[in-house]
Amino acid sequence: MVETLKPDPQEPRIVDRRERRRQRGDKYRLTALGGLAALSLDALSSVAYGPEAIVLVLVAAGAAAISWTVPVALAIAGLLLVLVLSYRQVIAAHPDGGGSYAVAKKDLGRGASLLAAASLVVDYVLTVAVSLAAGAASLASAFPVLADHLLLITLIGLAVLTVINLVGVAESAKVLMGPTLLFIIAIFAVIVVGLSRSSPVAVIGVDRGPIVPTDVIGIVLLLKAFAAGCSALTGVEAIANAVPSFRTPAVRRAQHTEVGLGVLLCGMLLGLAVLIRHHHTVPRDDVTLLAQLSAAAFGTGWPFYLTSLAVTAALCLAANTSFGGLPVLLALLAKDHRVAHLFALRSERPVFRYGVAALAVLAATVLIIVKAETHRLLPVYAVGVFIGFTISQTGLVRHWRGQRGPGWIRRAALNGFGAILTAVAAVVLLVEKFTEGAWLLLIIVPALIILFARTENYYRGVAEQLSFGRIPALPAQSPDPEPMLIVVPVVAVSEVTARALRTAQAMSGEIVAVAAEIDPASTRRLSHQWKQWDPGIPLTVLPCPRRSLVATLVGYVRNQTRHGRQVTVLLAQVEAHHWWQRPLHNPRGPVLAAALRARTDAVIATLEVRLD
Amino acid sequence: MVETLKPDPQEPRIVDRRERRRQRGDKYRLTALGGLAALSLDALSSVAYGPEAIVLVLVAAGAAAISWTVPVALAIAGLLLVLVLSYRQVIAAHPDGGGSYAVAKKDLGRGASLLAAASLVVDYVLTVAVSLAAGAASLASAFPVLADHLLLITLIGLAVLTVINLVGVAESAKVLMGPTLLFIIAIFAVIVVGLSRSSPVAVIGVDRGPIVPTDVIGIVLLLKAFAAGCSALTGVEAIANAVPSFRTPAVRRAQHTEVGLGVLLCGMLLGLAVLIRHHHTVPRDDVTLLAQLSAAAFGTGWPFYLTSLAVTAALCLAANTSFGGLPVLLALLAKDHRVAHLFALRSERPVFRYGVAALAVLAATVLIIVKAETHRLLPVYAVGVFIGFTISQTGLVRHWRGQRGPGWIRRAALNGFGAILTAVAAVVLLVEKFTEGAWLLLIIVPALIILFARTENYYRGVAEQLSFGRIPALPAQSPDPEPMLIVVPVVAVSEVTARALRTAQAMSGEIVAVAAEIDPASTRRLSHQWKQWDPGIPLTVLPCPRRSLVATLVGYVRNQTRHGRQVTVLLAQVEAHHWWQRPLHNPRGPVLAAALRARTDAVIATLEVRLD
Repeated sequence: MVETLKPDPQEPRIVDRRERRRQRGDKYRLTALGGLAALSLDALSSVAYGPEAIVLVLVAAGAAAISWTVPVALAIAGLLLVLVLSYRQVIAAHPDGGGSYAVAKKDLGRGASLLAAASLVVDYVLTVAVSLAAGAASLASAFPVLADHLLLITLIGLAVLTVINLVGVAESAKVLMGPTLLFIIAIFAVIVVGLSRSSPVAVIGVDRGPIVPTDVIGIVLLLKAFAAGCSALTGVEAIANAVPSFRTPAVRRAQHTEVGLGVLLCGMLLGLAVLIRHHHTVPRDDVTLLAQLSAAAFGTGWPFYLTSLAVTAALCLAANTSFGGLPVLLALLAKDHRVAHLFALRSERPVFRYGVAALAVLAATVLIIVKAETHRLLPVYAVGVFIGFTISQTGLVRHWRGQRGPGWIRRAALNGFGAILTAVAAVVLLVEKFTEGAWLLLIIVPALIILFARTENYYRGVAEQLSFGRIPALPAQSPDPEPMLIVVPVVAVSEVTARALRTAQAMSGEIVAVAAEIDPASTRRLSHQWKQWDPGIPLTVLPCPRRSLVATLVGYVRNQTRHGRQVTVLLAQVEAHHWWQRPLHNPRGPVLAAALRARTDAVIATLEVRLD
Repeated sequence: MVETLKPDPQEPRIVDRRERRRQRGDKYRLTALGGLAALSLDALSSVAYGPEAIVLVLVAAGAAAISWTVPVALAIAGLLLVLVLSYRQVIAAHPDGGGSYAVAKKDLGRGASLLAAASLVVDYVLTVAVSLAAGAASLASAFPVLADHLLLITLIGLAVLTVINLVGVAESAKVLMGPTLLFIIAIFAVIVVGLSRSSPVAVIGVDRGPIVPTDVIGIVLLLKAFAAGCSALTGVEAIANAVPSFRTPAVRRAQHTEVGLGVLLCGMLLGLAVLIRHHHTVPRDDVTLLAQLSAAAFGTGWPFYLTSLAVTAALCLAANTSFGGLPVLLALLAKDHRVAHLFALRSERPVFRYGVAALAVLAATVLIIVKAETHRLLPVYAVGVFIGFTISQTGLVRHWRGQRGPGWIRRAALNGFGAILTAVAAVVLLVEKFTEGAWLLLIIVPALIILFARTENYYRGVAEQLSFGRIPALPAQSPDPEPMLIVVPVVAVSEVTARALRTAQAMSGEIVAVAAEIDPASTRRLSHQWKQWDPGIPLTVLPCPRRSLVATLVGYVRNQTRHGRQVTVLLAQVEAHHWWQRPLHNPRGPVLAAALRARTDAVIATLEVRLD
């Protein structure tokens, strides 16, 4: 009894782009260099705020303390090295990608996967917020008139990204190649040219006045600076999540890309740190530290503006990576019944609209709360990212132990070391930045975990109750079923009513037209016209003591269904020709339909009567 | 064939309050004094801003020019006298009330009634805005900490009024009696005590610095002052609109009330003018003129605070009168098909929700635009009110001429004189205040008129097309109709599906279950389960090249209806137990139903499967 229709040959076969790419084979997949272009911006662009975050901490111990930027950056580079080696192994272990949620689900079980999901949601939202806020700050450093409108600029940028992602433009490594290359060249040019200058060519921004030390250099301050600078490491996991996008041999290429990313990021981070020490750059108002370094290297001519624009573009594209990530994660969670199934829906375009919209709303909320100030976001952001690092590496230790392949101890040791380092870093970050906003994570992450877990339980209960996956009892066919009662509410004799009655007749059952007596005069007119018309269907006038059509009809239908009788209420609605005429029609329709659906067991059928 | 059901004796008979009051007879209607309490606040409370508006104009000619407040107030009082006498006749001519829209519709025809409706809409909105803004200013005069938050206070006040009116609290003359009496006593106490002081007891507010005359006293400035002060006359029409609310003899009582209102308003206006001259009160920052007069009379002890609160309360209640008025006007317009029929809907409570909501949105918009500054609203407000005055009196001239009863010439002459005076005043106001915002009226009023007229034309066209009011052709009953095709979309075998099939069987027709093949694996699983289940109804698997359930189903249904076949799509929806669980269910339902309704001719039937 199952029939499969053939596709209509006249219908154009629109296949979504990813599928087409998959069908055409490897040609459209990433090379190692293409991967670097497509997947590294999230990580590389964080040098726009990472070094600045270090300096902002150190300056509390006076201008001289800024020299400590270099050792702090070295420590961060060391952590980066471990992370890169670790992620090379993640790539080998999970060639189908999937990120820390998939890894945790596979290797660590439900609890860890929920934690990973929650911290990833936070990360994706904060990546958008941080990148846009830093991008706006970079833009405003070049164009000071914008300095008072950072929030507005970030929100406009967010709106543009949201629209682009709702429409669903195909991402392509080629599109990203240009901005990535420009960004890399610009940063290294700033470093090389800057180091060649004995003093800054130009000083921009507003002096903050003499620096009064409020702290001394010590282990606590250095740990704080380290914690702050760790925000520069966000994004190094992106390549491991996207292994299937690489050309064969995908694993090798992805690993090369990961190493390439590590080298570039390391170079930028250390180069900028050395440059900061070289110029003794202190933070100034209205400009970013990177813009100051750029002005120090190039002066304020076109290379300075080009650098600022390249940084802004890189940060916007980094924000865009979250729009690729969070909706996919939410769709995965929806398939696991951990968020509303809504998020797994794609509309006619291959876009998870609800996920994109959710990301936009959450990021806008965050930006408005912190007034688009990057430094207020970084603490929470870095902690969230490090939780993800820890989870995926811990998962990998389990994975190696489970497989016990050749050399598994060495691999497990490396990932274990990485996990411990990042766990320690996460704890340090959490403690150091607890009062600066990291405490929020202790509320938001558990809240998300509880939400996911409760949603999952709820769906399980529903599936049980509705016997999903089991074969239900056959529809009981009583030998002589009472015919369905079809109720047609009527307000006037018109073509609409005639159409409704014709449709009711086609439904075959017992038909009754009902009118509520809200105004006796108009009811009398209706009764009179009905008698004249005599459509062969009785009109029942319902008393309406509460003067409420909705209450009266609901009461009537409930009465009819009381003894188990099947009732259909047929609502004829006038449909206007233009959308802006719609508010002029069916004033009662939606309210009536909603009330009947909620408060009766009747089937609610709507018939559209179209106007020309 | 028309049957009228008897009311179910078990159902509680909830009658709306107005009806109950009507049934109990006169006891709950207004006496002349009650009417003064219930209907005069809108007019009386305008002395909170009228005299101040005069002074603000005159002060342009220097501090000495403020003495001219008295002659200007006398001229306004003269106009008030004519208006009161005129409205006594309006009451006699239209004992069923109705206001200038009803009068214009009856006596002057379509054009004038549309003009009246448009100016009334503007008036009601501005009454709310002006009264709330003035109320907030009065409150802030007593409590200076509030001075920086006037807009916020007005918006909070607006929100409170909106909620009260959406819930629908019964108005009662008794509730209004207290505040009205307090207001009248407070104002007269300020006048009497103030005149007994040789110099102000206390001076409040912030000095604006020396007054530099920029103009001289002349006919233009005096006309401007007169025009500004006319805002004190707004609201004198309220009694004439509510004649049916009075006890018999309603007309006499309403007329007495109107005269009483005139005497009180006249006394307040002139008394305050004399007091202003007596103290040579000049405007100061952060306080209203009335608060200054109050402080001058009482000092800043409790009588001052009591007066400020009485004024604030009176203004809030004045704003509330519009919530009684605009929704009723919109309902009348909706019955005349001049605005969306929506506005004639009452929900289960006797409240026109959409009208209340529309008023709230419009008033909030106005308040935000002018930042809750009363003086920016008064020009437009006064012009709008005077257009209404002119229309209703012109209508009355026509009325008397049509009746030609005893003494009709005298009556027509009085109303004619009133009409000319108010028309002249309206033109003076419009010209004098053209650049201060009155020009907006020349855009908004015609725009509203066009909107009403086009809505009316649209509804007429629709009624024509759907043969409202005519007897349509009888439903064609073909002797052997093709049975209806009932399409049941299916995603899985479950209790939901079973219920949908059972319902489809009760509808009797040809039933087909359809599934869209978005994911081949799950379709195979479904087909397999269907065969196991074998519910006696075929499952058709639709190819889904676009991977869109919506597009696939729409295409399938359109195909079926192509040859005129009647199709019903039966959508089974899971209904959650709690409202907050609803987003977890039926992710595709609303989109699918909307698309099928808009793009096919099928009947869309929904079946709710309730969870426990």
